[in-house]
Amino acid sequence: MDDIVPIPQGFEFASHGAGLRYKDRDDLALVYSKIPAVGAGVFTKNLFQAAPVTVARENLAKAKSLRAVLLNAGQANACTGDQGLADCRETLKLVGKGLGISPGEILPASTGVIGQQFDMAVWRREVPGLTAKLGQKTPLDLAKAIMTTDTYPKLAWESVDIGGKEVRILGLAKGSGMICPNMATMLGVVICDAKIKPVKWREVLIAAVDGSFNAVTVDGDTSTNDCVLALANAASGVEVDSPRDLAALGEAVSEVCRSLAYMVVEDAEGGTKIIRIKVDGAEDNMAAEAAARAVGNSPLVKTAMFGGDANWGRIVAALGRSGADFDPNKVCVSIGQIPVFANGQPVAGDIDGLLAPRMRRAEISVEICLGQGDGEYLLLASDLTCEYVRINADYRS
Amino acid sequence: MDDIVPIPQGFEFASHGAGLRYKDRDDLALVYSKIPAVGAGVFTKNLFQAAPVTVARENLAKAKSLRAVLLNAGQANACTGDQGLADCRETLKLVGKGLGISPGEILPASTGVIGQQFDMAVWRREVPGLTAKLGQKTPLDLAKAIMTTDTYPKLAWESVDIGGKEVRILGLAKGSGMICPNMATMLGVVICDAKIKPVKWREVLIAAVDGSFNAVTVDGDTSTNDCVLALANAASGVEVDSPRDLAALGEAVSEVCRSLAYMVVEDAEGGTKIIRIKVDGAEDNMAAEAAARAVGNSPLVKTAMFGGDANWGRIVAALGRSGADFDPNKVCVSIGQIPVFANGQPVAGDIDGLLAPRMRRAEISVEICLGQGDGEYLLLASDLTCEYVRINADYRS
Repeated sequence: MDDIVPIPQGFEFASHGAGLRYKDRDDLALVYSKIPAVGAGVFTKNLFQAAPVTVARENLAKAKSLRAVLLNAGQANACTGDQGLADCRETLKLVGKGLGISPGEILPASTGVIGQQFDMAVWRREVPGLTAKLGQKTPLDLAKAIMTTDTYPKLAWESVDIGGKEVRILGLAKGSGMICPNMATMLGVVICDAKIKPVKWREVLIAAVDGSFNAVTVDGDTSTNDCVLALANAASGVEVDSPRDLAALGEAVSEVCRSLAYMVVEDAEGGTKIIRIKVDGAEDNMAAEAAARAVGNSPLVKTAMFGGDANWGRIVAALGRSGADFDPNKVCVSIGQIPVFANGQPVAGDIDGLLAPRMRRAEISVEICLGQGDGEYLLLASDLTCEYVRINADYRS
Repeated sequence: MDDIVPIPQGFEFASHGAGLRYKDRDDLALVYSKIPAVGAGVFTKNLFQAAPVTVARENLAKAKSLRAVLLNAGQANACTGDQGLADCRETLKLVGKGLGISPGEILPASTGVIGQQFDMAVWRREVPGLTAKLGQKTPLDLAKAIMTTDTYPKLAWESVDIGGKEVRILGLAKGSGMICPNMATMLGVVICDAKIKPVKWREVLIAAVDGSFNAVTVDGDTSTNDCVLALANAASGVEVDSPRDLAALGEAVSEVCRSLAYMVVEDAEGGTKIIRIKVDGAEDNMAAEAAARAVGNSPLVKTAMFGGDANWGRIVAALGRSGADFDPNKVCVSIGQIPVFANGQPVAGDIDGLLAPRMRRAEISVEICLGQGDGEYLLLASDLTCEYVRINADYRS
């Protein structure tokens, strides 16, 4: 594992099966920096903010430096009121005690069922098992430990050359339902061994998330627990401060986030296809985003894609109700680069015949030009399948 | 049939199997008033307006009186450009010729696949077969002829006493996917034998549609062809003009529209349950509507309802991203009158045990109080099922 994945220096990992909800698998995960790190976070904009979101925000605002991220799968600790907040803080105390660090230096993140209280007896019993495993687990183990309905663990990494020295970035994330910005309804952790000012690290993270996790949708449902937490611990000894170096690091962090976001859509609950929706020619970028989201969240577009049906009428109908302003007679739509609708009229020809092989691919691109201005947006969306319904009807996820 | 359904006086009906798309069933329908009628219409707000929507608007604006509504199932004649408009106008000429009325006195409505051009040779051959059947068909035959993925024909009627005399109202509609206001993504026709001023008839229709067809959602997808067309022909000889009589007629028309809208949700593509979402305590009615729609369109809420899972966390998460402004600590949610979430905290107790029998019902109510103000909204939504996905993945509907 370590030969393949270059791990940022100065970080250690632990995971543990506490049985919070799942049996015979790990469900607690810990990312630990051996030296103080700068932290940053991007959080859900849902008005209901889960207890770990509230506590992570508090700790990011107050702490001079950060040391760890504590994650659990199975219970979201969302909509759990004051008890949920108190329990979240106690979990940090338990872990802080085990590691000899302050609870305020730890960022919590939870995923799972909304509304269930933690069983603190289990946490008290199991946290020592978690901290005892520090250094014995890999990032892949952690990516597995935070899975819920995910079918595979999500890990991405990059290295970037800063003045001849290597800086490493590693990210892990989980999906895979209730996925729609803002944030992208998931948990993500990004670690890096660069030396970077907190304000710059925050800027790097926000820009990376905006073009990745915030530009995907599975089902249009934004969760109460979304967060991407990021630590940079300077363990590489490489300082990143000049605009050029910041740009290089920013691009690498963005690439890690894009890779993870792609995996989140690829592993969407029940998903079989990735729909890459590119809108341009919109009045502005916001209109382009509204148009892309209307298409990417349309159940009729998503089911047609699942069925391999190039039913462009549904795409056009979604555009027309998107709220984006345009002249219908200037709209053009292509699927897999094949024009299907041009200037408000169907394109003549055997579109289905040409498109059939492209519709069978795992990734289908939809190109939309609204003919109004320079606004553009790229959205990754999943399809909508029977399996999505089955997962979400049968399982209190 | 006529013994059960009191048909407004002065109207005749025809339907015919033209084979536009379906075989062995009727797919053309004609509502005809033997005397000139006042007309009104409510149309989709989708920027892409189907040819029949454009032509129906034109005719309503220009004609002094109306005589007929022409409907077809199988092809929407939407996104079909100038050819689609010309074809739509020709179908009205063909019917007008057969009936001896002006094409401008006929309102067209089409439902079916977007983007396909009419086969005018079929129309020219089959329209005489339609007009020849005038007077031989019932409203139920017409409701059947306009079905697409509907599983049953949708018919509703009311009679209202105006000064000791009877005024009759009859409505027919079709669903059953791409259903979300504005309009409610469907075709509807309402006929009435009252004598009423055009401006008043229009007001009656708009109010009725607002509280019925516009207050339902199946999949959040607003179609290009939505319309409700309404004729009142004065054949009863009863004049409706006073505020009291207008209120009585308005309530009866609203009741017909509510019945039809209920059936549209009940017969939602693949639907098994009706979710009655009542929001109150919102800042204003718009915020209440936004909150109700976020819940009613949430795939996760809809799949949970399909599964009979009282997963209130998904309801709360949808509220939190709805755009409605509120204090999370003041929000209360009940399902089937059973409180599940109160003042931002889970309600203690065996909620699942209490709710299990209620979750098995065909209609499930969700009561939400946002604790902010007096805004309220009632939305009927369908659930989301494997069958919905199957229908829309397998069939270019």
